[in-house]
Amino acid sequence: MSFNTFGHIFRVTTWGESHGPALGCTVDGTPPGIALTEEDIQPWLDRRKPGQNKFTTQRKEPDQVHILSGVFDGLTTGTPIQLMIENTNQQSKDYNDIAQAFRPGHADITYHQKYGHRDHRGGGRSSARETAARVAAGGIARKVLATFVPGLTITGYMIQMGVHQIDRRRFDATQIDKNPFWCPDPVVATNLATYLDELRLSQNSIGAVIEITANGVPAGLGAPLYAKLDSDLTSAMMSINAVKGVEIGDGMATAALTGTDNADEIRMGPDGPEFLSNHAGGILGGISTGQPIICRFAVKPTSSILTPRRTINTKGEELDLITKGRHDPCVGIRAVPVGEAMMACVLLDHLLLDRAHTGGYRGLIG
Amino acid sequence: MSFNTFGHIFRVTTWGESHGPALGCTVDGTPPGIALTEEDIQPWLDRRKPGQNKFTTQRKEPDQVHILSGVFDGLTTGTPIQLMIENTNQQSKDYNDIAQAFRPGHADITYHQKYGHRDHRGGGRSSARETAARVAAGGIARKVLATFVPGLTITGYMIQMGVHQIDRRRFDATQIDKNPFWCPDPVVATNLATYLDELRLSQNSIGAVIEITANGVPAGLGAPLYAKLDSDLTSAMMSINAVKGVEIGDGMATAALTGTDNADEIRMGPDGPEFLSNHAGGILGGISTGQPIICRFAVKPTSSILTPRRTINTKGEELDLITKGRHDPCVGIRAVPVGEAMMACVLLDHLLLDRAHTGGYRGLIG
Amino acid sequence: MSFNTFGHIFRVTTWGESHGPALGCTVDGTPPGIALTEEDIQPWLDRRKPGQNKFTTQRKEPDQVHILSGVFDGLTTGTPIQLMIENTNQQSKDYNDIAQAFRPGHADITYHQKYGHRDHRGGGRSSARETAARVAAGGIARKVLATFVPGLTITGYMIQMGVHQIDRRRFDATQIDKNPFWCPDPVVATNLATYLDELRLSQNSIGAVIEITANGVPAGLGAPLYAKLDSDLTSAMMSINAVKGVEIGDGMATAALTGTDNADEIRMGPDGPEFLSNHAGGILGGISTGQPIICRFAVKPTSSILTPRRTINTKGEELDLITKGRHDPCVGIRAVPVGEAMMACVLLDHLLLDRAHTGGYRGLIG
Amino acid sequence: MSFNTFGHIFRVTTWGESHGPALGCTVDGTPPGIALTEEDIQPWLDRRKPGQNKFTTQRKEPDQVHILSGVFDGLTTGTPIQLMIENTNQQSKDYNDIAQAFRPGHADITYHQKYGHRDHRGGGRSSARETAARVAAGGIARKVLATFVPGLTITGYMIQMGVHQIDRRRFDATQIDKNPFWCPDPVVATNLATYLDELRLSQNSIGAVIEITANGVPAGLGAPLYAKLDSDLTSAMMSINAVKGVEIGDGMATAALTGTDNADEIRMGPDGPEFLSNHAGGILGGISTGQPIICRFAVKPTSSILTPRRTINTKGEELDLITKGRHDPCVGIRAVPVGEAMMACVLLDHLLLDRAHTGGYRGLIG
Repeated sequence: MSFNTFGHIFRVTTWGESHGPALGCTVDGTPPGIALTEEDIQPWLDRRKPGQNKFTTQRKEPDQVHILSGVFDGLTTGTPIQLMIENTNQQSKDYNDIAQAFRPGHADITYHQKYGHRDHRGGGRSSARETAARVAAGGIARKVLATFVPGLTITGYMIQMGVHQIDRRRFDATQIDKNPFWCPDPVVATNLATYLDELRLSQNSIGAVIEITANGVPAGLGAPLYAKLDSDLTSAMMSINAVKGVEIGDGMATAALTGTDNADEIRMGPDGPEFLSNHAGGILGGISTGQPIICRFAVKPTSSILTPRRTINTKGEELDLITKGRHDPCVGIRAVPVGEAMMACVLLDHLLLDRAHTGGYRGLIG
Repeated sequence: MSFNTFGHIFRVTTWGESHGPALGCTVDGTPPGIALTEEDIQPWLDRRKPGQNKFTTQRKEPDQVHILSGVFDGLTTGTPIQLMIENTNQQSKDYNDIAQAFRPGHADITYHQKYGHRDHRGGGRSSARETAARVAAGGIARKVLATFVPGLTITGYMIQMGVHQIDRRRFDATQIDKNPFWCPDPVVATNLATYLDELRLSQNSIGAVIEITANGVPAGLGAPLYAKLDSDLTSAMMSINAVKGVEIGDGMATAALTGTDNADEIRMGPDGPEFLSNHAGGILGGISTGQPIICRFAVKPTSSILTPRRTINTKGEELDLITKGRHDPCVGIRAVPVGEAMMACVLLDHLLLDRAHTGGYRGLIG
Repeated sequence: MSFNTFGHIFRVTTWGESHGPALGCTVDGTPPGIALTEEDIQPWLDRRKPGQNKFTTQRKEPDQVHILSGVFDGLTTGTPIQLMIENTNQQSKDYNDIAQAFRPGHADITYHQKYGHRDHRGGGRSSARETAARVAAGGIARKVLATFVPGLTITGYMIQMGVHQIDRRRFDATQIDKNPFWCPDPVVATNLATYLDELRLSQNSIGAVIEITANGVPAGLGAPLYAKLDSDLTSAMMSINAVKGVEIGDGMATAALTGTDNADEIRMGPDGPEFLSNHAGGILGGISTGQPIICRFAVKPTSSILTPRRTINTKGEELDLITKGRHDPCVGIRAVPVGEAMMACVLLDHLLLDRAHTGGYRGLIG
Repeated sequence: MSFNTFGHIFRVTTWGESHGPALGCTVDGTPPGIALTEEDIQPWLDRRKPGQNKFTTQRKEPDQVHILSGVFDGLTTGTPIQLMIENTNQQSKDYNDIAQAFRPGHADITYHQKYGHRDHRGGGRSSARETAARVAAGGIARKVLATFVPGLTITGYMIQMGVHQIDRRRFDATQIDKNPFWCPDPVVATNLATYLDELRLSQNSIGAVIEITANGVPAGLGAPLYAKLDSDLTSAMMSINAVKGVEIGDGMATAALTGTDNADEIRMGPDGPEFLSNHAGGILGGISTGQPIICRFAVKPTSSILTPRRTINTKGEELDLITKGRHDPCVGIRAVPVGEAMMACVLLDHLLLDRAHTGGYRGLIG
């Protein structure tokens, strides 16, 4: 991964700031001949769009994607696809207070220290608005995956926000789209509405854990060590703003497992190997097993809050800062479609890498 | 990251299998003029060396490193440094049982499915033996860091094994080297000896959590999005065999934090900004803050155990498998020096990237 | 170099086709704090702009550059700079004849064979219009170089077109901007006007050789083998449409030199080493010597000509094709500012790479 | 290309100096399941081996290749293949005279200026000995290509040395292996023996032009702009020590061609498109046409000669230097197998890239 590019073959280079004229990305390496229009991408952006309910930032952006290159007569040409999304609802003056002061828990201070000069309006490049470009790129990845691996599905959802964790026994995938939190547990979803209302009233914010699963991923994607499927997935998720931890399968909990517990035993099914459990989260030795890929990540609470916090400014003066502007009380909510997009991009990239390296042939069993 | 290379400027390409004649790595991008001998590298390898006590594999390897290129008259020349470690204590016949059968929880099956052909002896490329090359490369990174950032220190230690977790109030860094588990809590260290003995006797294995901290890292290393310091660190740790989760700072626990809790407030100290807490683990917006970098990762239990597990072989026949050979009951123990090495490599890489991009200049405060 | 990205640290990713809505590039790795406006870039685009005289394509484009990101308050922020140039003067119906037929000497047939689907309008991605994005990126590179290495100058000019070659004894740098061919030899410049008129009338086109020199390049840029300064320069020039050969210093003519002829002897001057000749073109062992960097490349004649040529179409039918549309009779003319831009990008990239690797320190002489 | 790595998917990282204990390379991205032994690689090294006749350096090295990883039971495993060649015939004391002095025309001075510290023995990393690693890697590439594209052949030969150029009418491929110059023109081959004898007696050296052709390359390999097949080929050839110019097809001579001359007209043959000429050298728009790939490069004369040349040393003192040691009077001779190896590596890399990007499907004609 370079400064602003991720991927080996399917390579996405994002650009743009929160309050500039536009943002977008160049998607390179898309296979040719794939049917693609803006309508294939827009629905994913709409899922991430701000201002859809009172639980996300009140900035209202249409987030309309424009395809500027790489598609002709409705088909990809194999050349780079440029996606652009115009910024239309900036309120830069909200940010005058932080032009010289550093929000605690935010990238303000590190950008200043590294670059000596930063676009403070809306957080500039550090804004979660950058993730719109990822979601757009993910829309392309999903379209290609749908062509190459018809049964593959990617689903993201919230499993924890603050003190509220889902109960896996109540897991109901049909609930995910029915509440503003992408929560698969209807009981928790109800609780979250009250919980988040109280947090907003107390001028605070909260963290969350998001889980992304991919079903129907063929066995054999990934590589043994440095381009491991899990290593690339982890890197992709950790590259999302505010993410502080990433897990594959049982994740941090594997520390408490014994070898007998952790071994996903194997039997022979009608269509090939079948695993009796999935502690591995669908990845062994960096390579997909054919089981569901399971990836989780924690998103820290929004650092822009209305409660005063102690900080300093560029002159070294100490002050108490509250952050105005329109901020998500739980930035983890909108991270759900972002995490899905990153999963789609990484899976497509590894599908292409795999057909480069092995031609897509598979060692037979049985 | 390519298949077997990690790093942007300080690039390490590893090669070699568990039971081949040798393994090693090419270290590219090392600055010229750094004093370097095999004696600078060997102590780090000795820390990772197998067979040092009854809690690690009984394979006895001297793991003697040879510098084959890139150093002249005791100084690095700026050209690639080749490091080679010969394998001397292979017992390949131990592995005949798994030539055709797949160990549950192991990469055997995914290697077979992807490549159709694998070196089963000792796990081939999937063996933790590959990490010797990383530790050697880390030795070079440490030597360069010691020249460029004299006060920088990197320390790894075990904070959890199975049900045993350290108590942070008993944290004593001087204990780390005094027990075979690199455990900073002397009470837990004592308990672990008994615990691991029992596990071995019951022919089982166990997971662990390792924490790596780096002190004295200058502010400003990293980049905002895809070459984030945390994204690269996470990717590096996840590329170590058997790692299933990685955290920066408060990691997964940030999900339960509010914005007021999570904000590391800032005051002005005599030498610049001082943070009143370090939930961020020393990284904000992908860039180091100057606080200690804190990274944790979970290592799953060794999948090669003597307890029979249900599995299949390449013919699709079902069988119960026990794995002979000499295996670590807790592969997490030897992951401590490996994690330290990865931290060193990533930090040096970002130090070099930063001087490329910014020239190492820093935005002033005060 | 990836599909559409060049550079190691200063990385340019171009996108866009001849007849799409726009084209542009993402410029990543630009150091922060550099004063930059659209006015710094526009003059270079104006030099390359089509339709300036009867010797270039009659397509008339303002080629106005827009900076969409990466610059704030007139200074670069260190984040990616997006440059966009809108296409305004497409006449796509001119190209209907080649929608299914392949122009001999053109990329039509290879795009069809590789991708199965191509944007035939104006050559799509294979159009020389893509070079506008390079020239824009080169404008940024020049601005940074002017800050870092004040005395560095880059000059491109035509030294051959068809049968006309310059006489080095008449070389006059002040002439370059005074004729539409960027020719430093006033006698040849006069001849070229007549020559090219005749070629146009005869519905033909012609090749050319362009030379790019860089003065004031510090010694020490480059690397010994695969990121050699000459290897990267050559690759950059060969990546320009229609280029078929690249030379450094004496180039192909070194085949006829003896070792005594070729040795650029060295004496000690007041400011360090002085070379008595420059057969090497300023690069030895992949690393700059401090002498002028000299790079030449040959541009083949435009393949879109009005003279009928035998070819086939996608159905495999044989036909005679003439190519309508607005084409440069000598595409080499507009390659001059493009070659300069590539030189600027490669030099800046290596300047940044060098400060990563060596910190910019130099081995002393004397 | 990074400092010491070339290739996108089939990636070769070389290491080692002329007078160190060994040199070699890591070959990453080799497809699994390819039969490979040291005997597949050794013959190519034998062709390049020094000391085979009086026209090459008298250093006598067996250049025996060892495969240290990545091959099991005679088949590639898909993991990195480490190749090592031991240095056995160093005579380092020959080089004491140049420890502090800089050979004119050699990399001595630029290595000193960049790195401040260099391995002067035998030129260290700048020695043509590094090319042994490339030839070994090329042996692997050839073996894979032979499996994937059975009819593909790669042939290199000398077409010019000093004043002697081959007459294409006398071109006889069967002659190439019958003379020590790899010359396909028997008349010129005879002349070269006398010519080179005289040059050696006069303590001088001479340049050469090498041509590499690849037949049977499928249409569709390459990419439109920055990973163009010609751009990557050119970069690969220019990365060979002492190369100063590279041409594809008609190369620099295209400057004198008109559009009607240059157009390779197309007719329909029994098996698809047939071109009536090959000015393009088998590449249009960066993508292979299916015609023979033709690449030429010029190699400058060896700079280490026994005739005194004016130079300076690290103290800035002026002196006259003659270079002892065992040097090739025409380093171009041994560049023939090296150029072939680079062609093989680039073609395989693009074959793998193409199957990543397009899956190897082809747009039909007819």
